[in-house]
Amino acid sequence: MNDRIWTAAIIVIGDEILSGRTQDRNIAQIAKWLNVQGIRLREVRVVADDEGAIIEAVNHLRVRYDYLFTTGGIGPTHDDITVDAIAKALGVPVIVHPEARQILEDYYVGRGGLNAMRLRMARVPEGASLIPNRFSGAPGIRHGSIFIMAGVPNITAGMLDALTGSLEGGAPVLSLQIGCWVGESEIASILAETEKDHQGCQIGSYPFFREGRTGCNFVVRSTDEAGLKSCVDDLSQRLGAVGFPAIAGGI
Amino acid sequence: MNDRIWTAAIIVIGDEILSGRTQDRNIAQIAKWLNVQGIRLREVRVVADDEGAIIEAVNHLRVRYDYLFTTGGIGPTHDDITVDAIAKALGVPVIVHPEARQILEDYYVGRGGLNAMRLRMARVPEGASLIPNRFSGAPGIRHGSIFIMAGVPNITAGMLDALTGSLEGGAPVLSLQIGCWVGESEIASILAETEKDHQGCQIGSYPFFREGRTGCNFVVRSTDEAGLKSCVDDLSQRLGAVGFPAIAGGI
Repeated sequence: MNDRIWTAAIIVIGDEILSGRTQDRNIAQIAKWLNVQGIRLREVRVVADDEGAIIEAVNHLRVRYDYLFTTGGIGPTHDDITVDAIAKALGVPVIVHPEARQILEDYYVGRGGLNAMRLRMARVPEGASLIPNRFSGAPGIRHGSIFIMAGVPNITAGMLDALTGSLEGGAPVLSLQIGCWVGESEIASILAETEKDHQGCQIGSYPFFREGRTGCNFVVRSTDEAGLKSCVDDLSQRLGAVGFPAIAGGI
Repeated sequence: MNDRIWTAAIIVIGDEILSGRTQDRNIAQIAKWLNVQGIRLREVRVVADDEGAIIEAVNHLRVRYDYLFTTGGIGPTHDDITVDAIAKALGVPVIVHPEARQILEDYYVGRGGLNAMRLRMARVPEGASLIPNRFSGAPGIRHGSIFIMAGVPNITAGMLDALTGSLEGGAPVLSLQIGCWVGESEIASILAETEKDHQGCQIGSYPFFREGRTGCNFVVRSTDEAGLKSCVDDLSQRLGAVGFPAIAGGI
């Protein structure tokens, strides 16, 4: 078994996230997709549409993790500066990718043709390959370990589909959830003790208020299926023993 | 008029965000609240429940921005390590805050009393004051320019309410939105030219697909009300002149 842990970071690029106008949905969807590829998301940064901020984040994160994803800033408008900033970070020129140009030319037939602003979406850092986008023509961009994705979540979803299975990863992190009608502070010591007794398992605790009641879901994570199941069984047993029967799958 | 620009950063602490289990809602709600206080959110980092990662992010961001907010990791369980990590970052010990202890003692009367794990929620970095939490007893924590908030969004909302008006800020960023049924690549050059002609205004472009049609909303931002209105009027006029009447307020 290969024990190497593969890691990733995300840079979310966009004033609209920092202003609160737009609720980000890419972090969660990329995170879930990475789990399935056996890659662990370790860090996310949200930065403004600012060249200096993007360059700093790219250069910090690309050497620290196996993969780096960016979202946002690859459209046709004046504030779409992601490609230029990443090219500067990498020290390579920006070129018009011939295949991307062809894709856009084909896409804009009957849609007004390829104008100068639209052609911006064919620009890539030199050395890049393309990530197909079945929704709107303009492709995503891969440069080595860096994946440059769209800001619009359903376009990024399509790009992730296109990448599925193409990235090297390790053992996927498996998880199981159980839930109890209990305040987490009542059983916090049980969580700590159970986690300590099950090496390789992490227990997360997610309290909520619902239907006027206090409850808590517990997510156990491990790369080892048998160890995961044993930890969940043990946790359920310990919670039941103090009067809080656990509900499989969570509440 | 005071032209000083006040800035802030957020650190979202939590494996549940990085695993994709939980969709973050704190970034957007804190961002919107900061706008109203006249403070600009400049950067966000999402880090794991990992002491080293939290310390690094805290020490980097607290000297770079006027205010730093953290969310998550202040509950009673073993993976709630935010207070300890921030105290280490600041080089101060963790103490039990007497007022926080009293709040928790009162809160848990009739709820099973204050046990050792619950008492964890009264621990603060030495020198801290409390941020009231009207929902669940356990307070948030302020230490200088650092604000330590809950992970559960409605609890953080209550803490933000309690802080409203207490932070020094500058001129709030005002914004107006208009929308058009147009692909952004068709009018991208108009956006760039309009922004260039209106100093102090930023124009953001947010394309969407809805009801089978391509549309785009444009958000203009400025601290100057008259300048903002003039920019929006000019943009509407330019869009209308090429056949795309703008809808006030957006689509």
